[in-house]
Amino acid sequence: MKKLLLFTAALAMLFAGCCNGNKAQDATEAAINTIMNRKSVRSYTDQKLTEQQIETLLKAAMAAPSAINIQPWSFVVIDDDAVKQEIWGEGFQSKMFISAPVVIVVCGDTKTMRKPSGKPDAEPEEVDNIFWDQDCYAATENLLLAAEAMGLGAVWTAIYPTERMARVCEKLGLPANVKPLCAVPVGYPARDDQPKDKWKPEKIHRNRW
Amino acid sequence: MKKLLLFTAALAMLFAGCCNGNKAQDATEAAINTIMNRKSVRSYTDQKLTEQQIETLLKAAMAAPSAINIQPWSFVVIDDDAVKQEIWGEGFQSKMFISAPVVIVVCGDTKTMRKPSGKPDAEPEEVDNIFWDQDCYAATENLLLAAEAMGLGAVWTAIYPTERMARVCEKLGLPANVKPLCAVPVGYPARDDQPKDKWKPEKIHRNRW
Repeated sequence: MKKLLLFTAALAMLFAGCCNGNKAQDATEAAINTIMNRKSVRSYTDQKLTEQQIETLLKAAMAAPSAINIQPWSFVVIDDDAVKQEIWGEGFQSKMFISAPVVIVVCGDTKTMRKPSGKPDAEPEEVDNIFWDQDCYAATENLLLAAEAMGLGAVWTAIYPTERMARVCEKLGLPANVKPLCAVPVGYPARDDQPKDKWKPEKIHRNRW
Repeated sequence: MKKLLLFTAALAMLFAGCCNGNKAQDATEAAINTIMNRKSVRSYTDQKLTEQQIETLLKAAMAAPSAINIQPWSFVVIDDDAVKQEIWGEGFQSKMFISAPVVIVVCGDTKTMRKPSGKPDAEPEEVDNIFWDQDCYAATENLLLAAEAMGLGAVWTAIYPTERMARVCEKLGLPANVKPLCAVPVGYPARDDQPKDKWKPEKIHRNRW
Protein backbone atom coordinates (compact mmCIF):
# COMPACT_ATOMS: atom_id res chain seq x y z
CA MET A 1 0.00 0.00 0.00
CA LYS A 2 2.68 2.49 1.08
CA LYS A 3 4.77 1.59 -1.98
CA LEU A 4 1.81 2.22 -4.27
CA LEU A 5 1.12 5.60 -2.68
CA LEU A 6 4.80 6.52 -3.21
CA PHE A 7 4.46 5.35 -6.81
CA THR A 8 1.36 7.50 -7.21
CA ALA A 9 3.12 10.53 -5.72
CA ALA A 10 6.11 10.00 -8.02
CA LEU A 11 3.79 9.77 -11.03
CA ALA A 12 2.07 12.98 -9.93
CA MET A 13 5.43 14.76 -9.65
CA LEU A 14 6.34 13.45 -13.11
CA PHE A 15 3.24 15.04 -14.66
CA ALA A 16 3.74 18.25 -12.69
CA GLY A 17 7.27 18.33 -14.11
CA CYS A 18 6.10 17.92 -17.70
CA CYS A 19 3.71 20.81 -17.13
CA ASN A 20 6.36 23.30 -16.02
CA GLY A 21 9.51 21.95 -17.60
CA ASN A 22 8.80 23.22 -21.13
CA LYS A 23 6.92 26.34 -20.09
CA ALA A 24 9.66 28.77 -21.18
CA GLN A 25 10.03 26.91 -24.48
CA ASP A 26 6.25 26.94 -25.00
CA ALA A 27 6.16 30.71 -24.38
CA THR A 28 8.94 31.28 -26.93
CA GLU A 29 7.14 29.15 -29.52
CA ALA A 30 3.79 30.84 -28.82
CA ALA A 31 5.27 34.30 -29.42
CA ILE A 32 7.18 33.26 -32.55
CA ASN A 33 4.07 31.48 -33.88
CA THR A 34 2.03 34.65 -33.38
CA ILE A 35 4.55 36.58 -35.50
CA MET A 36 4.61 33.86 -38.19
CA ASN A 37 0.81 33.39 -38.21
CA ARG A 38 -0.19 37.07 -38.44
CA LYS A 39 -2.09 37.63 -41.66
CA SER A 40 -4.19 40.36 -43.25
CA VAL A 41 -7.82 39.70 -42.26
CA ARG A 42 -10.32 41.75 -44.26
CA SER A 43 -13.69 40.14 -43.43
CA TYR A 44 -15.19 39.97 -39.97
CA THR A 45 -18.15 38.46 -38.13
CA ASP A 46 -20.77 40.64 -36.42
CA GLN A 47 -19.25 39.97 -32.99
CA LYS A 48 -18.26 43.17 -31.19
CA LEU A 49 -14.98 43.67 -29.33
CA THR A 50 -15.03 44.27 -25.57
CA GLU A 51 -13.51 47.44 -24.10
CA GLN A 52 -10.91 45.19 -22.46
CA GLN A 53 -9.90 43.73 -25.83
CA ILE A 54 -9.54 47.23 -27.29
CA GLU A 55 -7.45 48.30 -24.30
CA THR A 56 -5.16 45.28 -24.67
CA LEU A 57 -4.62 46.10 -28.36
CA LEU A 58 -3.71 49.70 -27.49
CA LYS A 59 -1.46 48.70 -24.57
CA ALA A 60 0.45 46.48 -26.99
CA ALA A 61 0.69 49.35 -29.50
CA MET A 62 2.01 51.77 -26.85
CA ALA A 63 4.66 49.23 -25.80
CA ALA A 64 6.50 49.86 -29.08
CA PRO A 65 10.03 51.29 -29.09
CA SER A 66 10.23 55.06 -29.42
CA ALA A 67 13.24 57.18 -30.43
CA ILE A 68 14.30 59.35 -27.45
CA ASN A 69 11.12 57.94 -25.84
CA ILE A 70 9.01 60.72 -27.40
CA GLN A 71 6.04 58.36 -27.98
CA PRO A 72 4.61 60.42 -30.87
CA TRP A 73 1.64 58.08 -31.42
CA SER A 74 -2.05 58.63 -30.80
CA PHE A 75 -4.97 56.34 -31.63
CA VAL A 76 -8.47 57.16 -32.79
CA VAL A 77 -10.76 54.21 -32.04
CA ILE A 78 -13.72 54.32 -34.41
CA ASP A 79 -16.80 52.20 -33.67
CA ASP A 80 -19.45 54.73 -34.74
CA ASP A 81 -20.95 53.50 -38.02
CA ALA A 82 -21.73 57.07 -39.10
CA VAL A 83 -18.05 58.05 -38.78
CA LYS A 84 -16.92 54.89 -40.58
CA GLN A 85 -19.44 55.65 -43.33
CA GLU A 86 -18.22 59.26 -43.61
CA ILE A 87 -14.59 58.23 -44.09
CA TRP A 88 -14.84 54.86 -45.84
CA GLY A 89 -18.36 54.86 -47.25
CA GLU A 90 -17.09 54.75 -50.84
CA GLY A 91 -14.45 52.78 -52.69
CA PHE A 92 -13.83 49.09 -53.38
CA GLN A 93 -12.43 48.47 -49.88
CA SER A 94 -15.41 50.13 -48.20
CA LYS A 95 -16.98 46.89 -46.90
CA MET A 96 -13.84 45.97 -44.97
CA PHE A 97 -14.02 49.14 -42.88
CA ILE A 98 -17.80 49.30 -42.52
CA SER A 99 -18.10 45.65 -41.44
CA ALA A 100 -15.28 45.81 -38.86
CA PRO A 101 -16.59 46.36 -35.30
CA VAL A 102 -13.66 48.71 -34.70
CA VAL A 103 -11.25 50.65 -36.92
CA ILE A 104 -8.17 52.02 -35.15
CA VAL A 105 -6.45 54.96 -36.89
CA VAL A 106 -2.80 55.22 -35.85
CA CYS A 107 -1.69 58.85 -35.83
CA GLY A 108 1.70 60.45 -35.30
CA ASP A 109 2.83 63.88 -34.12
CA THR A 110 5.50 65.21 -36.50
CA LYS A 111 6.67 67.79 -33.92
CA THR A 112 8.12 67.60 -30.42
CA MET A 113 9.23 70.09 -27.75
CA ARG A 114 12.97 70.34 -27.05
CA LYS A 115 15.31 72.79 -25.32
CA PRO A 116 17.74 74.45 -27.73
CA SER A 117 21.02 72.51 -27.55
CA GLY A 118 23.51 74.07 -25.14
CA LYS A 119 20.80 76.14 -23.45
CA PRO A 120 19.62 74.12 -20.42
CA ASP A 121 17.84 77.13 -18.95
CA ALA A 122 15.95 78.09 -22.13
CA GLU A 123 12.28 77.29 -22.71
CA PRO A 124 11.64 74.14 -24.81
CA GLU A 125 10.74 74.98 -28.40
CA GLU A 126 8.85 73.07 -31.07
CA VAL A 127 11.10 71.10 -33.44
CA ASP A 128 10.57 68.39 -36.06
CA ASN A 129 10.69 64.79 -34.81
CA ILE A 130 12.41 63.02 -37.72
CA PHE A 131 11.56 59.60 -36.20
CA TRP A 132 7.82 60.22 -35.70
CA ASP A 133 6.73 57.71 -38.35
CA GLN A 134 9.11 54.89 -37.36
CA ASP A 135 7.73 54.69 -33.81
CA CYS A 136 4.13 54.70 -35.10
CA TYR A 137 4.78 51.86 -37.58
CA ALA A 138 6.32 49.75 -34.80
CA ALA A 139 3.20 50.48 -32.70
CA THR A 140 1.00 49.41 -35.63
CA GLU A 141 2.82 46.07 -35.95
CA ASN A 142 2.43 45.48 -32.19
CA LEU A 143 -1.30 46.14 -32.59
CA LEU A 144 -1.58 43.62 -35.44
CA LEU A 145 0.36 40.98 -33.50
CA ALA A 146 -1.74 41.50 -30.36
CA ALA A 147 -4.88 40.98 -32.48
CA GLU A 148 -3.43 37.74 -33.87
CA ALA A 149 -2.51 36.57 -30.37
CA MET A 150 -6.06 37.27 -29.16
CA GLY A 151 -7.69 35.30 -31.98
CA LEU A 152 -8.81 38.50 -33.70
CA GLY A 153 -8.18 39.54 -37.30
CA ALA A 154 -6.83 42.87 -38.50
CA VAL A 155 -5.23 44.48 -41.52
CA TRP A 156 -2.80 47.39 -42.00
CA THR A 157 -4.24 49.87 -44.52
CA ALA A 158 -1.98 52.82 -45.35
CA ILE A 159 -3.23 56.40 -45.19
CA TYR A 160 0.14 58.22 -45.12
CA PRO A 161 1.60 59.26 -47.55
CA THR A 162 -1.46 58.90 -49.84
CA GLU A 163 -4.11 61.39 -50.97
CA ARG A 164 -6.45 59.70 -48.43
CA MET A 165 -4.76 61.73 -45.68
CA ALA A 166 -6.62 64.99 -46.24
CA ARG A 167 -10.06 63.35 -45.90
CA VAL A 168 -9.12 61.50 -42.69
CA CYS A 169 -7.50 64.60 -41.14
CA GLU A 170 -10.66 66.59 -41.82
CA LYS A 171 -13.21 63.97 -40.71
CA LEU A 172 -11.31 63.12 -37.50
CA GLY A 173 -10.41 66.76 -36.74
CA LEU A 174 -6.72 66.04 -36.31
CA PRO A 175 -4.43 68.86 -35.07
CA ALA A 176 -2.12 70.39 -37.71
CA ASN A 177 1.00 68.54 -36.46
CA VAL A 178 -0.75 65.16 -36.31
CA LYS A 179 -0.80 62.90 -39.40
CA PRO A 180 -2.93 59.76 -39.84
CA LEU A 181 -0.50 56.97 -40.81
CA CYS A 182 -2.75 53.96 -41.21
CA ALA A 183 -6.19 52.57 -40.43
CA VAL A 184 -6.46 49.12 -38.86
CA PRO A 185 -9.88 47.41 -38.97
CA VAL A 186 -10.13 44.77 -36.20
CA GLY A 187 -12.73 42.08 -35.61
CA TYR A 188 -13.36 38.37 -35.35
CA PRO A 189 -12.24 36.66 -38.58
CA ALA A 190 -15.15 35.52 -40.79
CA ARG A 191 -12.89 33.16 -42.76
CA ASP A 192 -9.93 30.91 -42.06
CA ASP A 193 -7.30 33.21 -43.63
CA GLN A 194 -3.78 31.78 -43.82
CA PRO A 195 -0.47 33.67 -43.53
CA LYS A 196 1.74 34.12 -46.60
CA ASP A 197 5.12 32.40 -46.67
CA LYS A 198 7.56 35.28 -47.31
CA TRP A 199 10.80 33.51 -46.33
CA LYS A 200 13.44 34.41 -48.93
CA PRO A 201 17.02 33.55 -47.88
CA GLU A 202 18.28 35.58 -50.87
CA LYS A 203 17.24 38.72 -48.98
CA ILE A 204 19.97 38.03 -46.42
CA HIS A 205 23.51 39.37 -46.92
CA ARG A 206 26.51 38.64 -44.71
CA ASN A 207 28.73 41.51 -43.58
CA ARG A 208 28.40 43.22 -46.97
CA TRP A 209 25.75 43.43 -49.71
CA MET B 1 -4.63 -3.27 -6.36
CA LYS B 2 -6.89 -2.71 -9.39
CA LYS B 3 -8.61 0.18 -7.59
CA LEU B 4 -5.28 1.84 -6.85
CA LEU B 5 -4.17 1.53 -10.46
CA LEU B 6 -7.44 3.13 -11.58
CA PHE B 7 -6.87 5.88 -9.00
CA THR B 8 -3.35 6.38 -10.35
CA ALA B 9 -4.64 6.54 -13.94
CA ALA B 10 -7.29 9.09 -12.91
CA LEU B 11 -4.64 11.20 -11.18
CA ALA B 12 -2.48 11.04 -14.30
CA MET B 13 -5.40 12.20 -16.48
CA LEU B 14 -6.07 15.02 -14.02
CA PHE B 15 -2.50 16.32 -14.44
CA ALA B 16 -2.61 15.85 -18.20
CA GLY B 17 -5.82 17.89 -18.21
CA CYS B 18 -4.27 20.76 -16.27
CA CYS B 19 -1.42 20.76 -18.79
CA ASN B 20 -3.58 21.20 -21.88
CA GLY B 21 -6.72 22.92 -20.58
CA ASN B 22 -5.37 26.52 -20.68
CA LYS B 23 -2.99 26.06 -23.58
CA ALA B 24 -4.70 28.56 -25.91
CA GLN B 25 -4.94 31.12 -23.10
CA ASP B 26 -1.28 30.54 -22.20
CA ALA B 27 -0.26 31.10 -25.83
CA THR B 28 -2.19 34.39 -25.97
CA GLU B 29 -0.59 35.57 -22.72
CA ALA B 30 2.87 34.51 -23.84
CA ALA B 31 2.61 36.52 -27.06
CA ILE B 32 1.16 39.60 -25.34
CA ASN B 33 3.82 39.37 -22.61
CA THR B 34 6.54 39.30 -25.26
CA ILE B 35 5.16 42.54 -26.73
CA MET B 36 4.87 44.16 -23.29
CA ASN B 37 8.29 42.95 -22.09
CA ARG B 38 10.33 44.00 -25.14
CA LYS B 39 12.91 46.53 -24.08
CA SER B 40 15.98 48.20 -25.55
CA VAL B 41 18.99 46.05 -24.58
CA ARG B 42 22.32 47.76 -25.20
CA SER B 43 24.84 45.55 -23.39
CA TYR B 44 25.51 41.91 -24.19
CA THR B 45 27.49 38.95 -22.90
CA ASP B 46 30.23 37.32 -25.00
CA GLN B 47 27.92 34.42 -25.96
CA LYS B 48 27.55 34.04 -29.74
CA LEU B 49 24.25 33.46 -31.53
CA THR B 50 23.71 30.21 -33.44
CA GLU B 51 22.91 30.30 -37.16
CA GLN B 52 19.51 28.86 -36.26
CA GLN B 53 18.81 31.76 -33.88
CA ILE B 54 19.77 34.27 -36.59
CA GLU B 55 17.53 32.48 -39.10
CA THR B 56 14.58 32.57 -36.68
CA LEU B 57 15.06 36.31 -36.16
CA LEU B 58 15.07 36.89 -39.93
CA LYS B 59 12.11 34.59 -40.57
CA ALA B 60 10.15 36.66 -38.04
CA ALA B 61 11.25 39.88 -39.76
CA MET B 62 10.20 38.59 -43.20
CA ALA B 63 6.76 37.63 -41.83
CA ALA B 64 5.88 41.34 -41.55
CA PRO B 65 3.00 42.80 -43.54
CA SER B 66 3.96 44.30 -46.90
CA ALA B 67 1.98 46.73 -49.04
CA ILE B 68 1.00 45.02 -52.33
CA ASN B 69 3.25 42.20 -50.99
CA ILE B 70 6.33 43.86 -52.53
CA GLN B 71 8.55 42.79 -49.57
CA PRO B 72 11.08 45.64 -50.09
CA TRP B 73 13.27 44.55 -47.15
CA SER B 74 16.76 43.10 -47.14
CA PHE B 75 19.00 42.31 -44.18
CA VAL B 76 22.75 42.61 -43.78
CA VAL B 77 23.88 40.37 -40.93
CA ILE B 78 27.17 41.68 -39.56
CA ASP B 79 29.29 39.48 -37.29
CA ASP B 80 32.71 40.46 -38.66
CA ASP B 81 34.43 42.61 -36.03
CA ALA B 82 36.39 44.46 -38.72
CA VAL B 83 33.17 45.53 -40.45
CA LYS B 84 31.56 46.53 -37.14
CA GLN B 85 34.70 48.54 -36.32
CA GLU B 86 34.66 50.24 -39.74
CA ILE B 87 31.07 51.42 -39.36
CA TRP B 88 30.66 51.90 -35.60
CA GLY B 89 34.25 52.19 -34.36
CA GLU B 90 33.74 55.76 -33.18
CA GLY B 91 31.05 57.61 -31.24
CA PHE B 92 29.56 57.27 -27.76
CA GLN B 93 27.37 54.31 -28.77
CA SER B 94 30.29 52.42 -30.31
CA LYS B 95 30.58 49.81 -27.54
CA MET B 96 26.98 48.68 -28.06
CA PHE B 97 27.66 47.71 -31.68
CA ILE B 98 31.17 46.33 -31.19
CA SER B 99 30.18 44.15 -28.21
CA ALA B 100 27.08 42.68 -29.89
CA PRO B 101 27.73 39.23 -31.43
CA VAL B 102 25.54 40.27 -34.37
CA VAL B 103 24.30 43.56 -35.79
CA ILE B 104 21.46 43.27 -38.31
CA VAL B 105 21.05 46.22 -40.67
CA VAL B 106 17.49 46.43 -42.03
CA CYS B 107 17.50 47.84 -45.56
CA GLY B 108 14.68 48.83 -47.90
CA ASP B 109 14.38 49.13 -51.66
CA THR B 110 12.74 52.46 -52.52
CA LYS B 111 11.87 51.27 -56.04
CA THR B 112 9.76 48.45 -57.48
CA MET B 113 8.91 47.11 -60.93
CA ARG B 114 5.35 47.64 -62.17
CA LYS B 115 3.51 47.51 -65.49
CA PRO B 116 2.21 50.90 -66.60
CA SER B 117 -1.46 51.12 -65.56
CA GLY B 118 -3.83 50.12 -68.35
CA LYS B 119 -1.03 48.44 -70.34
CA PRO B 120 -1.12 44.74 -69.36
CA ASP B 121 1.12 43.79 -72.29
CA ALA B 122 3.79 46.42 -71.61
CA GLU B 123 7.11 45.64 -69.93
CA PRO B 124 7.23 46.39 -66.18
CA GLU B 125 9.03 49.63 -65.44
CA GLU B 126 10.80 50.93 -62.32
CA VAL B 127 8.60 53.11 -60.11
CA ASP B 128 8.84 54.51 -56.58
CA ASN B 129 7.43 52.30 -53.81
CA ILE B 130 5.90 54.90 -51.48
CA PHE B 131 5.39 52.24 -48.76
CA TRP B 132 8.98 50.88 -48.75
CA ASP B 133 9.81 52.21 -45.28
CA GLN B 134 6.55 51.14 -43.58
CA ASP B 135 7.09 47.46 -44.41
CA CYS B 136 10.71 47.59 -43.23
CA TYR B 137 9.79 49.16 -39.88
CA ALA B 138 7.18 46.44 -39.29
CA ALA B 139 9.88 43.86 -40.10
CA THR B 140 12.22 45.55 -37.61
CA GLU B 141 9.61 45.35 -34.84
CA ASN B 142 9.07 41.64 -35.61
CA LEU B 143 12.82 41.12 -35.31
CA LEU B 144 12.94 42.86 -31.90
CA LEU B 145 9.96 40.85 -30.62
CA ALA B 146 11.44 37.56 -31.83
CA ALA B 147 14.65 38.42 -29.95
CA GLU B 148 12.64 39.11 -26.77
CA ALA B 149 10.73 35.84 -27.22
CA MET B 150 14.02 33.92 -27.56
CA GLY B 151 15.53 35.42 -24.41
CA LEU B 152 17.85 37.63 -26.47
CA GLY B 153 18.30 41.39 -26.18
CA ALA B 154 18.23 43.89 -29.04
CA VAL B 155 17.80 47.59 -29.71
CA TRP B 156 16.47 49.62 -32.66
CA THR B 157 19.05 52.24 -33.69
CA ALA B 158 17.95 54.55 -36.50
CA ILE B 159 20.11 55.15 -39.57
CA TYR B 160 17.48 56.60 -41.92
CA PRO B 161 16.91 59.55 -42.25
CA THR B 162 20.11 60.64 -40.45
CA GLU B 163 23.53 61.65 -41.77
CA ARG B 164 24.75 58.16 -40.72
CA MET B 165 23.18 56.77 -43.90
CA ALA B 166 25.99 57.73 -46.28
CA ARG B 167 28.65 55.94 -44.23
CA VAL B 168 26.60 52.73 -43.92
CA CYS B 169 25.67 52.73 -47.65
CA GLU B 170 29.33 53.05 -48.56
CA LYS B 171 30.74 50.51 -46.08
CA LEU B 172 28.07 47.88 -46.89
CA GLY B 173 28.14 48.56 -50.63
CA LEU B 174 24.37 49.03 -50.89
CA PRO B 175 22.81 49.42 -54.37
CA ALA B 176 21.61 52.94 -55.26
CA ASN B 177 17.91 52.14 -54.65
CA VAL B 178 18.53 50.48 -51.29
CA LYS B 179 18.56 52.56 -48.10
CA PRO B 180 19.73 51.40 -44.65
CA LEU B 181 16.85 52.12 -42.26
CA CYS B 182 18.16 50.91 -38.93
CA ALA B 183 20.82 48.79 -37.26
CA VAL B 184 19.77 46.23 -34.64
CA PRO B 185 22.50 44.82 -32.37
CA VAL B 186 21.42 41.44 -30.96
CA GLY B 187 22.95 39.33 -28.22
CA TYR B 188 22.41 37.76 -24.81
CA PRO B 189 21.51 40.50 -22.29
CA ALA B 190 24.34 41.32 -19.86
CA ARG B 191 21.96 43.05 -17.45
CA ASP B 192 18.39 42.59 -16.27
CA ASP B 193 16.90 45.46 -18.30
CA GLN B 194 13.26 46.22 -17.64
CA PRO B 195 10.63 47.50 -20.11
CA LYS B 196 9.31 51.06 -19.83
CA ASP B 197 5.64 51.56 -18.94
CA LYS B 198 4.35 53.73 -21.80
CA TRP B 199 0.61 53.24 -21.21
CA LYS B 200 -1.09 56.63 -21.60
CA PRO B 201 -4.91 56.46 -21.92
CA GLU B 202 -4.91 60.16 -22.90
CA LYS B 203 -3.40 59.10 -26.24
CA ILE B 204 -6.67 57.35 -27.12
CA HIS B 205 -9.49 59.23 -28.85
CA ARG B 206 -12.95 57.87 -29.60
CA ASN B 207 -14.44 58.38 -33.08
CA ARG B 208 -12.95 61.89 -33.31
CA TRP B 209 -9.85 63.67 -31.95
